[in-house]
Order: sequence, then C-alpha cells, then structure tokens
Amino acid sequence: MEVSGEVATKSDDNLATEEPLEVRLVHGGHRFPVAVTMRTPGADFELAAGFLFNEGVLQGRERLRRISYCVDKGVGEEQRYNIVNVELAAAATPADIAPLERHFSMTSACGVCGKATLEALWARGYRALPEGPRLRPGMLVSLPAKLRQAQALFETTGGLHAAGLFTADGALVAVREDVGRHNAMDKLVGWALLKGKLPLAGHVVLVSGRSSFELVQKSLSAGVAALCSVSAPSSLAVDLAREFGLTLVGWLRDGRFKLYSGAAGACELGAPGGH
Amino acid sequence: MEVSGEVATKSDDNLATEEPLEVRLVHGGHRFPVAVTMRTPGADFELAAGFLFNEGVLQGRERLRRISYCVDKGVGEEQRYNIVNVELAAAATPADIAPLERHFSMTSACGVCGKATLEALWARGYRALPEGPRLRPGMLVSLPAKLRQAQALFETTGGLHAAGLFTADGALVAVREDVGRHNAMDKLVGWALLKGKLPLAGHVVLVSGRSSFELVQKSLSAGVAALCSVSAPSSLAVDLAREFGLTLVGWLRDGRFKLYSGAAGACELGAPGGH
Repeated sequence: MEVSGEVATKSDDNLATEEPLEVRLVHGGHRFPVAVTMRTPGADFELAAGFLFNEGVLQGRERLRRISYCVDKGVGEEQRYNIVNVELAAAATPADIAPLERHFSMTSACGVCGKATLEALWARGYRALPEGPRLRPGMLVSLPAKLRQAQALFETTGGLHAAGLFTADGALVAVREDVGRHNAMDKLVGWALLKGKLPLAGHVVLVSGRSSFELVQKSLSAGVAALCSVSAPSSLAVDLAREFGLTLVGWLRDGRFKLYSGAAGACELGAPGGH
Repeated sequence: MEVSGEVATKSDDNLATEEPLEVRLVHGGHRFPVAVTMRTPGADFELAAGFLFNEGVLQGRERLRRISYCVDKGVGEEQRYNIVNVELAAAATPADIAPLERHFSMTSACGVCGKATLEALWARGYRALPEGPRLRPGMLVSLPAKLRQAQALFETTGGLHAAGLFTADGALVAVREDVGRHNAMDKLVGWALLKGKLPLAGHVVLVSGRSSFELVQKSLSAGVAALCSVSAPSSLAVDLAREFGLTLVGWLRDGRFKLYSGAAGACELGAPGGH
C-alpha cells in the first residue's frame, strides 16, 4: 500500500529477496559450517567462493575441488538452495581454515585500533598494489549510468546493492547484486576467481553504497586498481587505500567525484586544483 | 580533491570515522572477546550493551554490573577507547554466552531458510507485539526531516547512517549514528537499555538505510511498535514484521511511504485504497 498525504493506494512491491545462505567447508570427508549470511539468492557459488577467498581460506581457483548445493537426505526442498558445500583440493589441511579464527587472534596480538588493523593486513600478506593505469575523469563519471543500466533488478525492487567491474577504459565487465553490499562485492570477486581472472589488475570497481574498510580490503584482495562509490568513504577506508596504493573515489555522481587516494587522469591527489 | 568534468579542486572532506571496537565479556574474573565490529567511535557503551542485548547475552539492565573501557597495562593509549569490558551481574553463568553460538546451532537444528529463521525466533522466546498505537500518516511523513535535522554529523561527512527513536506522536526521543546502520540501531537500543526504558512499546524507529531482516529483529527485541526506513525492505524483513506484528514502513520520503506490515492511521494494509 502506498500512502501519499492522506491518500492510500495498494501497492504490490517487488521485494528484494533475502534468505539465509550457509557456507559449509568440506574437509577430509567432514562438512562443517563456516558462515551464515543473509543474501539475495543467485550467484551463490560465487558468493561462497568470494567470501572464502577474501577471508584467506581459499587462496585461488586451483585450491578448489568442487562447489555444490548440499543434497543431504536431511536437507528439505525449501533449504536445498540455501546451503553451499565448498570442497578444497586434496592437499587441504586444517590450517586452511585457521584464517577464520584470525579476527580475534589479530586483535589480541596486535591491539585494536586503525593502525594495528592496517599492520595486521601486512602480516597477512597484503602488499602494495603495482602502479595502475591512468584513469580518466571522463571515464569515471560515466560509470554510474552504466552500472544502473546493468542493474536488471534495481528498477523493480529498489532494494539491491550493486558492485560493478569495469576495465580501465570504462567498459563493463560484470555486475553482481545483493541486499548486502559486501555480498555483492563477494559475488563479483567470486565470479572472477571461478573464471580464473584474479588478480583483477588494472580494473575498476564501482559500488552503489559507501566505501567501508571492508570493501577496500576486498578490493585489495582482488587486486583491482580502483574502488569507486557513489557515496562517502570512511576514515579507515581512506587510510587503508592510501597504505596499499588503491585509488579510492567517492561521491561519484552527477558528473563529479572526489578523489581520496591515488591518481585519476591528470588529477593527482593533494595537488592544487588545475584544468 | 573534487573533480567536476575536467576541473579539479582540492577538497578536505570531513570523513566519518571508522575504527574497530572489541567487546569483551567479563565473567568470573576472566575477560574474553565476543565481538569485533567496525564502528564510529562514540556511544560505545551503548553499542556494546545494545549488541549484547539483541544477541540475547544481556537480558536486561539488572543483569549488568559494569561497562567500562579496558585499562589493562598491555593496552596502549591508541586502543584504550577501542575495547569495552562488559561485566555481567554475579549470578551470570556460562549459559549467558551460549546465545552467541546460536547462529550455527540454529541452522543445523532447524534448517536454513526464511521459514526456519522465523521459527527459530519463536523458539528463542520472541513473541508477537501487543497491539500498538494508531500511527497517523501525517506524523510518519514528518519523521525524515526531524531525523535529518538531528543528525548533527551528517551534513559534514555524508557518511553516517542514523537510527532515530520517536514517540507515537512523532516527537524525537533519541538519535544515534554510525558508519554501520546495524551499529546505529544497536546504539539506540543500548541507550534505552542503559536508561531503563526497554521495552520501547508504542515507539517508532526510523533508519536511514534499508530495512533488513536484522533490523526488524532488533526492532522486535527492543519492542518498538514500528520500524520505518527511507528505502526498501527485503522480503524476509517483511515476512518477519508480519509474523510478529511489527508495523513496517518503507520508502518514507517526500511526503509518501509504503506500508508493508501492520496499520498506519486509517490505512489498513491490503485494504483497498481510500481517503
């Protein structure tokens, strides 16, 4: 029902679907759940692969034996497409899942603050990005319209976040959507992993929401050259992008943007404004 | 640096601060971390209390002995305000923290799907809300402007989500902000808990983002009558709101809204549109 002033009209919205997804790791014949996330069904294997890749559990496509929906007898029809089994290659060891415990070990070992969080990423093996391509401002401002156009579902539900992957020339490569913006990014990275396209050097990602620490981290994992968002980044997102050399663009809308880290075209960050 | 077309001007943004917060539970003389979240500093005790309340670890104010920043010798100055110790009352038992393990036990016991997720909440003790106050459409459409006005930080950073608490007459009671919208809601609920105001029967919450399953769940925990958002709800958010009798309002902006669950003024959900 839609209400405008005091007038009510019935409205049958197309709602964005949100359902739980459980990711199970198959390991030496055993299956155990490693995560449950609320997500929009579709691209579930990509979501599982991207999530595990970003967490450091799945280091690359060659470490993956099989991804499938769980078809155990005990699993009813309704939930059959809500459980994904991820089987690692034969050489997998229990150490493979150790990274999932790292959130806590990291904080107790290194302290809880922004600086320690960045240091922990160096310790985890994150490295500064190689110098990326020059990104033209004119290319960047063209991205939001391309992303919207590609968002098949957005116009009807209005409830989905999107993550779009582009070449340095602004050509659309892939788009993934989800009720959660982190999931949309995981799906995109998972797609690249399953296609053997990682790292995504020289590519640009545009997300529909804000840029958080976590989205910058996922961008670094995937090796893209730039992360753009239509809204603001957080302080730690900016710190992290600068630390590892990721170009970070915010407020990319209406033909404008703000550059928080890195370089775009002739515009060097921090340099006096020019033409 | 701000870029418009090919013209670049330097821009010194006020960024929304994002820093990790570790919540530690103090229990029988021991301290152990139960969660690390990226948040905007401020209202940290409320955030910790609200998070633990929603998780079922902290059942009410009377179960709380003390909340404080960690001042252990090993904790450096930089992270002193990023660790919060929550001490439960003397009668606390290890069972108090069992709920934190529930995400997994729930899924393996009850299956992974929307229906099972709702059933699990009944099993956790969630009950249908008592009949709430009549909410006038004119009151509802007045809320976004009040929330924006109260968002002291929003205008400068543009990067903060907000959760505002209102009476059934539309009077603003409290506002909390955070880079994460779930955190903003946890802060609001934590504030109410610490003030002894729970349950928030008859109250209305407005959030700046979308309504997810989790935000509806937090609203039910707090006992508010209605959850409103300026954007779309998800399918499971609607299902959950209907299951427990929460009024759910979406797309509340520009003098309009859509009603997804419950009643608002003379407008009953699903009834033919009228005046």
